[in-house]
Amino acid sequence: MREIFDATLTISPGLPTWPGDPKVVLERFSRIEDGADANISRMAIGVHTGTHVDAPYHFVEGAKTVEHLDLNLLTGHAQVVFVEVKGEDIEVSDLQQAGIPRGTDRLLLKTRNSGYWERIEDGFQQDFAALSPEAAQYLVDLGIQLVGIDYLSIAPFKEGKLTHQVLLRAGMVVIEGLDLRAVQPGRYELYCLPLKLAETDGAPARVILIRE
Amino acid sequence: MREIFDATLTISPGLPTWPGDPKVVLERFSRIEDGADANISRMAIGVHTGTHVDAPYHFVEGAKTVEHLDLNLLTGHAQVVFVEVKGEDIEVSDLQQAGIPRGTDRLLLKTRNSGYWERIEDGFQQDFAALSPEAAQYLVDLGIQLVGIDYLSIAPFKEGKLTHQVLLRAGMVVIEGLDLRAVQPGRYELYCLPLKLAETDGAPARVILIRE
Repeated sequence: MREIFDATLTISPGLPTWPGDPKVVLERFSRIEDGADANISRMAIGVHTGTHVDAPYHFVEGAKTVEHLDLNLLTGHAQVVFVEVKGEDIEVSDLQQAGIPRGTDRLLLKTRNSGYWERIEDGFQQDFAALSPEAAQYLVDLGIQLVGIDYLSIAPFKEGKLTHQVLLRAGMVVIEGLDLRAVQPGRYELYCLPLKLAETDGAPARVILIRE
Repeated sequence: MREIFDATLTISPGLPTWPGDPKVVLERFSRIEDGADANISRMAIGVHTGTHVDAPYHFVEGAKTVEHLDLNLLTGHAQVVFVEVKGEDIEVSDLQQAGIPRGTDRLLLKTRNSGYWERIEDGFQQDFAALSPEAAQYLVDLGIQLVGIDYLSIAPFKEGKLTHQVLLRAGMVVIEGLDLRAVQPGRYELYCLPLKLAETDGAPARVILIRE
């Protein structure tokens, strides 16, 4: 019997968003209780809201936009590891101790960040753990093709550009804002399906992990 | 070697939307070419835009909203059939001749509607083929738990309420706006992953079909 884990944050007006990004708007503009045939809603969000994917174009001019990401990369075997972060950022030494199996293509990093989703009402947190540029390069050198993390950026808050560039220039798919609270380290089948938005730098996604 | 078919429409400002629903807005509000660190976009759409899922709450007050749809239903074996529509709507007799295998849980209907996606620039089309209420009841009686179709509604344009109510009151998941142009009738693994929107009547989805 397969077990499905939903690694996706629920998008609601209370969800913390990146400073400068738009707040989540979910609005019902047609209501059965007001006599309409149907309940109908609209949404307005930044494309990097909640659980989402970064396309290379997010940080690399002229690079691939989100609707062209390879579905063969967005789906398949994935390894979830827990990373004990010794310092401020995730460094190469932290990754070396996380037990990443040889041959891993898709890697999801569970960290202390997962605790932030227990208190969403506290708003955006700056002190999340994220990859230093050197750690990002280490994953590129390992041959990782997709990396995910359990807060809203794969890169440190204070300096996000370099880490993103290292990953996205290598053609890596980046998933941010994963909810891995219920997911134990191990091997899963990943289905990361972002909205198919035309010529866009990223997209919100539904992400599930299946254990057979 | 598995083959993945993307049954999802690309969401762009040119995509036809239901009359009365908001037009698609995709807007880049931060640009590398203007000196920003990153390209960043926002989106504003109706939740029934493009390829999307209807939750029971869409037409049934107090019923399940989209974030609570069962992932075990949204993923799994699915049957794609071609339905030759004799009259205006899809009737029971059309479904009886479509060759729906016994035991089908998830059913995707490919019809003449698929041709509309060849000429998106012509805008919204009212004359799409959709299920009559009797045909909807026939699918409920067959035990179908998920039904999808290749235009923006499972129900006829002139009268949408009854067909939706028959399906949604039975707890069926409805996928609308599928792009099945490249998909031949047959059996697939379906992964229909809608955005996880809080307390909402539907959600845009990425839908893929895998043939092993």
